[in-house]
Amino acid sequence: MISHLPNVRYLTGFTGSNGILLLSASQAILFTDPRYDLQAHEECDCRVRIERGPAWDAVWKYAARRSRTIALEADHVSHAVWDQAAQRLGRGVKLKPLGGAVERLRRVKEPEEVEAIESSAQLCAAAFAQAMRRLRPGVTENDAAAEIEFRMRRLGAEGPAFETIVAAGARAALPHARPGAAKIAPGQPVLADMGASLGGYMSDMTRMVHMGAPPKEFLGWYNAVLEAQQAALAAVRAGVAARRVDAAARKTLKARGLDRYFTHSTGHGVGLEIHEGPRVGARSEDVLEAGMVVTVEPGIYLPGKTGIRIEDTVLVTGTGARILTPASKELMVLES
Amino acid sequence: MISHLPNVRYLTGFTGSNGILLLSASQAILFTDPRYDLQAHEECDCRVRIERGPAWDAVWKYAARRSRTIALEADHVSHAVWDQAAQRLGRGVKLKPLGGAVERLRRVKEPEEVEAIESSAQLCAAAFAQAMRRLRPGVTENDAAAEIEFRMRRLGAEGPAFETIVAAGARAALPHARPGAAKIAPGQPVLADMGASLGGYMSDMTRMVHMGAPPKEFLGWYNAVLEAQQAALAAVRAGVAARRVDAAARKTLKARGLDRYFTHSTGHGVGLEIHEGPRVGARSEDVLEAGMVVTVEPGIYLPGKTGIRIEDTVLVTGTGARILTPASKELMVLES
Repeated sequence: MISHLPNVRYLTGFTGSNGILLLSASQAILFTDPRYDLQAHEECDCRVRIERGPAWDAVWKYAARRSRTIALEADHVSHAVWDQAAQRLGRGVKLKPLGGAVERLRRVKEPEEVEAIESSAQLCAAAFAQAMRRLRPGVTENDAAAEIEFRMRRLGAEGPAFETIVAAGARAALPHARPGAAKIAPGQPVLADMGASLGGYMSDMTRMVHMGAPPKEFLGWYNAVLEAQQAALAAVRAGVAARRVDAAARKTLKARGLDRYFTHSTGHGVGLEIHEGPRVGARSEDVLEAGMVVTVEPGIYLPGKTGIRIEDTVLVTGTGARILTPASKELMVLES
Repeated sequence: MISHLPNVRYLTGFTGSNGILLLSASQAILFTDPRYDLQAHEECDCRVRIERGPAWDAVWKYAARRSRTIALEADHVSHAVWDQAAQRLGRGVKLKPLGGAVERLRRVKEPEEVEAIESSAQLCAAAFAQAMRRLRPGVTENDAAAEIEFRMRRLGAEGPAFETIVAAGARAALPHARPGAAKIAPGQPVLADMGASLGGYMSDMTRMVHMGAPPKEFLGWYNAVLEAQQAALAAVRAGVAARRVDAAARKTLKARGLDRYFTHSTGHGVGLEIHEGPRVGARSEDVLEAGMVVTVEPGIYLPGKTGIRIEDTVLVTGTGARILTPASKELMVLES
């Protein structure tokens, strides 16, 4: 029983917001509701059942008569649904946790998926470049973020893959700052973290812009993060433990005494979700495989001063990382 | 133990993407990670614990030593987390489903929340009006949706409350159509369903536009839906069963032989989430209370022809519905 929507989409192509996929050795049935009648038949090759009541009710009713063991996605199914399953299916049916079976399939991308992610990364970079032409002191963080997202949409994206972050000056020290009404001022660094969703596939990139010539101290930090990012990229290759990629970034920052300001992981997988496997962090047990797509995004956050992060979306290959994000990592300096 | 993020936000003000709130008779503690260190302290009055490892691990460790019974949000906590809790806390700690306790609190809005939703609804209506000035034949559905979302952002929204729907002609018969690359053509009806998120609070509205003078048949359908919406609005009042609001819309459409094309519920609560309690449908057991905010959105979907939906966000009061969506429901006709 597959109910996590990105997994349902991966297996069937269905893009609606309510769908449960029942897979058995002999068949696949998608349960959804009347809102998606036409759409589900358009998108899916499998059998489609349109249910007026709660989809889960229909699923239990259907499965109770036909199954002896049902595997549910324990990481995604709520405890309440699991409980309901146990009650409605009775003792004759055994429930099993499916674990991340579909997520594991999704970690290594098919060539068409890589293409979709690359298109998304290209679109994102183009939207960023267009939006930067309009960035000047006095523009609010929020308006700059809006401009980036508008350009994404105009270029054909469904929308941003996540809420675009534009954070200027000291606000960039909040790694997940929401863009605010603060006006971007001359002399400030600006962090922009953004991703596009295109045909359901995500991309993720972060770039820094400096309003006017940057002070030497900032340049030192910037170059340290850039070096860390390049060291991490150089460590990417099929067969390498993901934590070694993280270690490469951390080691570079440590040499500059900046590792204690690097407060998150180096990266994560990207695909139908903006965060998926593998994990690229110090505690990751994942090993990189050819066809995985991950972000490489070290950063440092200096409270009260600023934050710097540089991020690409990359494909893991047998020989190294192929960068899918087509945007320069030279510090962009906007003269006002 | 509160882990559903809108509930965490409701109780603490925390807007990050990783937070677990532990509430006891004597204290409140928010567990989050280093990305949100500054932000959590800025946003929350309660104790904040920054955890480098998985937040749940820290929560179990903390709770195991202090609690005998823990209530978890069974509708939101995955079965895997529940299972982990049972194992990590041992037999000395009893797990209980909390049910929708926080959601029930959230159904009746505080005055400041109503204000926030009304601001969101006003912003949404303004963004729609601005975007409509640029709508003409040849614009794609996607570009029209992008324009609406851009205007929302420029007016100060964090973003759309959901993926904006712009569907022209027969595509409007898919109640949850994704805007596509199709160009809007002269003579087509256009359905636009949109909502803004402003300060975390959502709004939801749907309006129809016709490109050029509508044919008589379309006007008949439009007026039927408008009548149904007005009948439903007239039924809204504190103390009324929500299903009677749904019945009012359905009865009006039945009188025109159109009820079989009304394939979804009449509405839903709106607040920190775009879909929350109460439910306004034929099977709803909810009773409306003063301070609830719901959508009223009957629609008809005529496969191969078109779809028509009209939707407001409204406040339930002791005397009726106060419409929060400040936009005319006269059919908007755009001359090309």
